[in-house]
Amino acid sequence: MPVTQQTASESDVKHQLSLLHEELGSLQRQARQLKIPVIILFEGADGAGKGTLINKLLMSLDPRGFKVYAMHSPNDEAIFRPFLWRFWIKTPERNKITIFDRSWYRHLLDDRVKGDVSSEEAPRYFTEINDFERQLTTDGVVLIKIYLSISKKKQSSRFEKLANNPATSWRVSKKDWKRHKQYDEYSAMADEMIFPTHTEKSPWAKIDSSSIKSATFEVLQLVRGRLTSAINEKLAEKPATMTPDLNWRAKKDNPSRLDQVDLSLTVDTEEYHVRRKQLQQRLHELEHQLYVTRRPVILVFEGWDAAGKGGAIRRLVKGLDPRGYEVIPIAAPNDFELSHHYMWRFWNQYPKGGHIAIYDRSWYGRVTVERLEGFCSEDEWKRGFEEINETEKHWHNCGAIILKFWIHISNEEQLRRFEARKNTTHKQWKISKEDWRNREKWDAYKVAIDDMIDLTDKPTAPWIVVEGNNKPYARIKVLETTVKALESVL
Amino acid sequence: MPVTQQTASESDVKHQLSLLHEELGSLQRQARQLKIPVIILFEGADGAGKGTLINKLLMSLDPRGFKVYAMHSPNDEAIFRPFLWRFWIKTPERNKITIFDRSWYRHLLDDRVKGDVSSEEAPRYFTEINDFERQLTTDGVVLIKIYLSISKKKQSSRFEKLANNPATSWRVSKKDWKRHKQYDEYSAMADEMIFPTHTEKSPWAKIDSSSIKSATFEVLQLVRGRLTSAINEKLAEKPATMTPDLNWRAKKDNPSRLDQVDLSLTVDTEEYHVRRKQLQQRLHELEHQLYVTRRPVILVFEGWDAAGKGGAIRRLVKGLDPRGYEVIPIAAPNDFELSHHYMWRFWNQYPKGGHIAIYDRSWYGRVTVERLEGFCSEDEWKRGFEEINETEKHWHNCGAIILKFWIHISNEEQLRRFEARKNTTHKQWKISKEDWRNREKWDAYKVAIDDMIDLTDKPTAPWIVVEGNNKPYARIKVLETTVKALESVL
Repeated sequence: MPVTQQTASESDVKHQLSLLHEELGSLQRQARQLKIPVIILFEGADGAGKGTLINKLLMSLDPRGFKVYAMHSPNDEAIFRPFLWRFWIKTPERNKITIFDRSWYRHLLDDRVKGDVSSEEAPRYFTEINDFERQLTTDGVVLIKIYLSISKKKQSSRFEKLANNPATSWRVSKKDWKRHKQYDEYSAMADEMIFPTHTEKSPWAKIDSSSIKSATFEVLQLVRGRLTSAINEKLAEKPATMTPDLNWRAKKDNPSRLDQVDLSLTVDTEEYHVRRKQLQQRLHELEHQLYVTRRPVILVFEGWDAAGKGGAIRRLVKGLDPRGYEVIPIAAPNDFELSHHYMWRFWNQYPKGGHIAIYDRSWYGRVTVERLEGFCSEDEWKRGFEEINETEKHWHNCGAIILKFWIHISNEEQLRRFEARKNTTHKQWKISKEDWRNREKWDAYKVAIDDMIDLTDKPTAPWIVVEGNNKPYARIKVLETTVKALESVL
Repeated sequence: MPVTQQTASESDVKHQLSLLHEELGSLQRQARQLKIPVIILFEGADGAGKGTLINKLLMSLDPRGFKVYAMHSPNDEAIFRPFLWRFWIKTPERNKITIFDRSWYRHLLDDRVKGDVSSEEAPRYFTEINDFERQLTTDGVVLIKIYLSISKKKQSSRFEKLANNPATSWRVSKKDWKRHKQYDEYSAMADEMIFPTHTEKSPWAKIDSSSIKSATFEVLQLVRGRLTSAINEKLAEKPATMTPDLNWRAKKDNPSRLDQVDLSLTVDTEEYHVRRKQLQQRLHELEHQLYVTRRPVILVFEGWDAAGKGGAIRRLVKGLDPRGYEVIPIAAPNDFELSHHYMWRFWNQYPKGGHIAIYDRSWYGRVTVERLEGFCSEDEWKRGFEEINETEKHWHNCGAIILKFWIHISNEEQLRRFEARKNTTHKQWKISKEDWRNREKWDAYKVAIDDMIDLTDKPTAPWIVVEGNNKPYARIKVLETTVKALESVL
């Protein structure tokens, strides 16, 4: 009796499905406890059932633990920033799941079919996406990439079904039918996209969604599998050693850049005042051009305690329109920031095109203070150099002008300034016990800073070592370097 | 010799100015140490010199301690939310200064002159602005409101000067000249705006900016004065007592709402499944209408531990398109959140028009857990009732549909569920020591919850007490109430 058989098998399927749902709920809780962040993205042609399958998946999950983002065309905030910006800032906390309905792959799929991204531009996006995914997965993110495919025939029949039902006809637009005509092109582009981005840590799963029922099973099983291995890996993981490394030197034979700085350079007071005003005036003009051309500027200030970062920044911004720049002081990350990739908080602060972001300390904390205080593992700070280079490259790729200042003073000059602060009532707020403690580690910091400059000084994001013993000299050099850099590109 | 005299007085002025700058820098540091948040807003006709005077003020300040926002017309994110939203989320941390170049007063000034806000609508904005400013200043914010005025003649001469200089001519548009013609209307509107919003805690300073020099002095002196008094007040302030209050009862004669709940209500299993599916289906349809009409929905879930909030939320969202809702679990505030007004983090989560925000616990923590655990002062939680009512009223005013569910169970039922969790392996994660500890305070919580319902149950933001001993009954009631509420307005 075939009818009974079918019923039996249907209830069987239902039972299996409910078991899967239960399992996934439990895996979500385990992942949460183990602080495993998860990203699941869905790509696929229109009508492939992305929305439906996301809904099926969500039924297993505790709604307090996930967020779903439907990624449409970028809005004004996103369009004036790197294309990965809007995804970076949505990466999950370490105990959460983020689900993307379309993702950064729009750029290599829809936008290529539309002709907004050419074959010449595509390689850049491939590189940036692979860097991005590697940075996240190395940091512990489980990245599940699902491509749903259906046949051209199936696509048109789904469109027709939606169009014929008054309750759903709004969901099928002329655009959809236009894209239907481009089905073959779209499929070819998808294949071209999947191959170079199918990596060990972030593989693609191509799932045939002609039957929603069987696709549901495949999606749930895939997520179950990926979560299970991530949980097992995490449980087997040995805790990383976080002992500070004070001696490693990346390029042992490189002479120390810091030793080569001529700290005797000074500038005459009269000249200082005249020059400073000229440069401030010029920078103000450039600020306006910057806005018109929508280029973002990223200025990083690092330097010894009491080197004069604050003073240099104040002279830099003095003539500027405050609506065009922001000074971003970077302190130790708070809990919420710590529960993301270390670059996450800097992506969040990324300036909109036409604006200047001035970082008073920065992501270079990763390879200096975090390295020396043991706030991250050796593996983490060592790969930090490459990650930072990649990131600054991505920013440069979309027009950012990047300058990084290391304000250098001698050990003796620092001592003089510390003593002066201690002995001047209205400057005492500037000096703390921690400053004295850091001072004791001068030599170790010097090694780390030489490494930092050796490994991250790039033509597109150069380090400028500023002679800081004479404050007026340092301030003029910062202003002058910034003005020249802007003039050369505007 | 008048020339010499003038020179003497000029250098005198310069000296005074530099003293003022120094003083302001030092006051900023003191305010930072004392954790005093500051908001300075500038309003005034075009050409009154807002930008220039903001720049003059900023010269005194450490750029790491302030942010400047030029508030243009609201963008897409802001337009689909209450008009105060974009200002709320920009309120400063307790050690920072926020400067607004134009502010929430745009609505009572520019928008009224343009005719976007009518005389009938204006009173609502006055009320909301006064509530907003009172909430902030009571919480310790120093709010400095500056209105810059110039004569009509001065306005046209400034426009002409800008227009005649090629470097600045872009700053004067046809719109500006159009507004110049409306000068008298604008001035009248400004007077009408200033009078009802000039309060003790947030007074206006009207400064004549015909001469930028003297206006600069006035602005700096004003800020110096306000900061000085705020610092002195803070230093004189006695630390608030934070002892938990377990007995206060707002309306002593009101019978307990919780005692009136009929916890014997149940629903038949068969009926539960049928009804649940119908309601989920209906809610899905309403979700789409909601999006089309751009109304936001705010659903608050509060209830005893183990009352079944999570389960009710899951059944509520099961049929929904995940792009249309968000479940927001509320835990103890993190450091960054603590350094703002307690409502700040909820404003940050405010749903965009057309979306549903589901809060699993909420701002009602202020008058329950914070009251009972002594996390805020008596004064703070007592004024919390009014602040919450005002806020929900503001949200209602701009179309929000607000429902607040208290899921009620009996003390015995809670014990049964706790025991069951303890004894069931896959449910043990749901129960913690804190749950047992909270349980001991049942009676105190009951008083606080009765107060909460007595004082914040409003027709525009009603509390629905849900009979929760029978989970299916509770889930159906939540679904049904939500569906009915949406149907009645859509």
